[in-house]
Amino acid sequence: MSLLKIDLNSDVGESFGNYKLGMDEEVIPLISSANIACGFHAGDPAVMRRTIAIAHEHGVAVGAHPGFPDLLGFGRRNMDASLDEIRDYVTYQVGAIQAFAFARGLQLQHVKPHGAMYNMAVQNPAIWEAVAEAVAALDKNLILFVLAGANRSELEALGAKYGIRIGFEFFGDRAYNRDGSLVSRKQPGAVIHDHQMVAEKVLKMVQEGKVVCIDGSEIELAADTICVHGDNPSALALVKMIRETLEAAGVEIAPPADFL
Amino acid sequence: MSLLKIDLNSDVGESFGNYKLGMDEEVIPLISSANIACGFHAGDPAVMRRTIAIAHEHGVAVGAHPGFPDLLGFGRRNMDASLDEIRDYVTYQVGAIQAFAFARGLQLQHVKPHGAMYNMAVQNPAIWEAVAEAVAALDKNLILFVLAGANRSELEALGAKYGIRIGFEFFGDRAYNRDGSLVSRKQPGAVIHDHQMVAEKVLKMVQEGKVVCIDGSEIELAADTICVHGDNPSALALVKMIRETLEAAGVEIAPPADFL
Amino acid sequence: MSLLKIDLNSDVGESFGNYKLGMDEEVIPLISSANIACGFHAGDPAVMRRTIAIAHEHGVAVGAHPGFPDLLGFGRRNMDASLDEIRDYVTYQVGAIQAFAFARGLQLQHVKPHGAMYNMAVQNPAIWEAVAEAVAALDKNLILFVLAGANRSELEALGAKYGIRIGFEFFGDRAYNRDGSLVSRKQPGAVIHDHQMVAEKVLKMVQEGKVVCIDGSEIELAADTICVHGDNPSALALVKMIRETLEAAGVEIAPPADFL
Amino acid sequence: MSLLKIDLNSDVGESFGNYKLGMDEEVIPLISSANIACGFHAGDPAVMRRTIAIAHEHGVAVGAHPGFPDLLGFGRRNMDASLDEIRDYVTYQVGAIQAFAFARGLQLQHVKPHGAMYNMAVQNPAIWEAVAEAVAALDKNLILFVLAGANRSELEALGAKYGIRIGFEFFGDRAYNRDGSLVSRKQPGAVIHDHQMVAEKVLKMVQEGKVVCIDGSEIELAADTICVHGDNPSALALVKMIRETLEAAGVEIAPPADFL
Repeated sequence: MSLLKIDLNSDVGESFGNYKLGMDEEVIPLISSANIACGFHAGDPAVMRRTIAIAHEHGVAVGAHPGFPDLLGFGRRNMDASLDEIRDYVTYQVGAIQAFAFARGLQLQHVKPHGAMYNMAVQNPAIWEAVAEAVAALDKNLILFVLAGANRSELEALGAKYGIRIGFEFFGDRAYNRDGSLVSRKQPGAVIHDHQMVAEKVLKMVQEGKVVCIDGSEIELAADTICVHGDNPSALALVKMIRETLEAAGVEIAPPADFL
Repeated sequence: MSLLKIDLNSDVGESFGNYKLGMDEEVIPLISSANIACGFHAGDPAVMRRTIAIAHEHGVAVGAHPGFPDLLGFGRRNMDASLDEIRDYVTYQVGAIQAFAFARGLQLQHVKPHGAMYNMAVQNPAIWEAVAEAVAALDKNLILFVLAGANRSELEALGAKYGIRIGFEFFGDRAYNRDGSLVSRKQPGAVIHDHQMVAEKVLKMVQEGKVVCIDGSEIELAADTICVHGDNPSALALVKMIRETLEAAGVEIAPPADFL
Repeated sequence: MSLLKIDLNSDVGESFGNYKLGMDEEVIPLISSANIACGFHAGDPAVMRRTIAIAHEHGVAVGAHPGFPDLLGFGRRNMDASLDEIRDYVTYQVGAIQAFAFARGLQLQHVKPHGAMYNMAVQNPAIWEAVAEAVAALDKNLILFVLAGANRSELEALGAKYGIRIGFEFFGDRAYNRDGSLVSRKQPGAVIHDHQMVAEKVLKMVQEGKVVCIDGSEIELAADTICVHGDNPSALALVKMIRETLEAAGVEIAPPADFL
Repeated sequence: MSLLKIDLNSDVGESFGNYKLGMDEEVIPLISSANIACGFHAGDPAVMRRTIAIAHEHGVAVGAHPGFPDLLGFGRRNMDASLDEIRDYVTYQVGAIQAFAFARGLQLQHVKPHGAMYNMAVQNPAIWEAVAEAVAALDKNLILFVLAGANRSELEALGAKYGIRIGFEFFGDRAYNRDGSLVSRKQPGAVIHDHQMVAEKVLKMVQEGKVVCIDGSEIELAADTICVHGDNPSALALVKMIRETLEAAGVEIAPPADFL
């Protein structure tokens, strides 16, 4: 009997200079993959070094979390950047964090674009391709995290084209549309606030590969990694509940490099 | 009889976004080592990629040219950064440019700190050590460019301590003090404007390992690389004259990875 | 008989730190209104001060040229900024340049949003309103420059609502659609390169209030200010030809504060 | 009998984008003068607008808190900026915040340089002069906050020269040397952590114009404004204790525009 495995990933290393953001010391021990900001939308060289050190201490896999050069908007504002610009931004940021990882004897496991870059890629697969191309040119062992959804086969083909693994991501605290896309945050019910419901939704996806949509229908949705947050004590409590729910059901929390 | 070899290095890739600076296309074919800005004091991801491509086309060795995070001051203003900050800035910037080099199938040859970071290191060897430590942690094949001067043995010891090669740099267009230091730009005669004099000074240093100081005395000063500039047509003309003078004397222009 | 008057405006003060952009010293004497970058997409405090000094020496009216906080993209990339953000960006930048003008004994004449902020406002009048509101809150004597087109009455109403004057802008080197909008730069023929044609087009608009569109039809289009450029010698030559053509026809070049 | 008056000032508006710093909502009601960051070392346009609104609601005087363009170092690192650069940085930042104040119907009361700019001015009076010159050129009603110390008469002469008022600042939580300067933070005992001691020290200075130095000697030191902090709950508690101690002794907390 094969053991079910799932990854928990969280955005960390988002502090900047004198500005502290997130509860990295608390959330990192609870996850298996750390998405570390790379200095464009958040993070700075010292924060990158320290965040990698924390991840290392806890045996958590490290990944790059590149974003748009928009510190003021925290990388959350869509920017009309060209595909060339996106490729270059990814190369630059992944290179920078690779250096900090290497200096500590680690290798990056994955790359997950941040905020607007991720959201724009979900809308425009040419951006996923630009990111994949940049990532593959640096290290074919890197896993690219993308949103799990209806275009799974296209994204798998993209990974195959560039020779990298794709890690499909699930959002336990977000409602899904019947077509496998996320319900827009502008719609009511888009975000699920009940921790128990989130944990159960995650478990169902892991065990059955299914999610109940906002309209009550059930669709197939398989993912490798769950996005969790460490912004505040409530978010941390949710991560703990998700962990406990998964472990109680015999699911192993593991970085995707272990099972992809 | 062994052939004399010397490197010509120039700061390139200093454009930023819509701002063009320097005549990279013209100067790169004339040099053997390109110091490429890494996005802190100058340069941006697209410029880094394109500058590496130009260097590659001309078979010119590529190096990182990290600076302080002071785009407004072009990295020329001393900043009271800590040694930790300097180490982290070097790691970040070298990592970023390593990525662009790697994506093009190249390896970085060297690291030369820019502007205020270089000048502060000349005044404070603890900064050379911080830079050397950061560089060595990333790639022991990297050569660290430092100012040739009286503290040669200390800097060689630093290289030995961290297991990296040190490339000593000579400024043909700058006057030297008797102690082997550069005459301050605030003093008259600090910069030599006569191209013929510069070329002859470079040749003397290469052939004899000696330089005539501002006070007329002659001191020993050996270097591996000559700093040249590509900011304007006159600077380019000087680089050509230096090249021709050296080649006419049978000196080979070569990157220091070839002979250090 | 009343004398025809028209304004010539140009984007200036776009240098940044060590980066020089544009031929401000040459173009400013040829125009009547200077749109001065304010440090977000271009320009810096020293450049702002010096550019105001040049405009002052030549008796050219000074205006703010606020843009998005995207130095890397030169403010030319659409950004998903909220109306609140746009208002705040305009307030900040106009305030900063007001200070430099005031310190020299000058008052700002106008505000013209830059690049993507201007283009987004052309597409979305709510952005014109956000800009107008910010401008009016600072100085009701300020003239807001907007693109002349079919929505003239709406924009005049906007000016009336906030108690500021609107200056309608004409692009002599751009082709117009029949609906009074600019032909997209992505279409062939969008930019007119023939200097003679541009000058005649400007003169026709000034004398007749009409423009011949890309489809050959003639539409009414009245404007108060002509956008010219000072990026390069050819652009300068065009400004001179436009001036000469206008003056030969008895049109006076004057800042809009003189006639609006 | 004349009532004793003293100002309490605090650095506020130091949040940036998604980064929250300081307890502005809590500390502003406790002070009489708010030093608002202007976007260089901290703060952003939206934060500036909101901070002015909070100060306005509580009837607290607003001031500019300009710093070096070093967001990463929070303006705390000495930078080798020229006097021209400092003047321009002050003009730019004061202008930007004047705009937000004006848009709300307020006038700036004062200017207090931040961090390294303040500390460098304390070491080099030419920097105080550059700041004073920039401030005076914008509004002669502005009060320049400077460190109270042995050079009081020189600083008063500087204010007279430029026609602006000088507000002398006292640090209740810092130890003083016999010459009236602050004990360096690198020395033990430089910062006083006992709240009761700080409050008593402030009261003594206000009532007697005297301070007990680190060596036990007592010197004369008159000041108009006390620097307090709102970074954390403990700092807030200290501000409350200082207020209560002063008010219990019949001292009125008031902005310096009321009494200078």
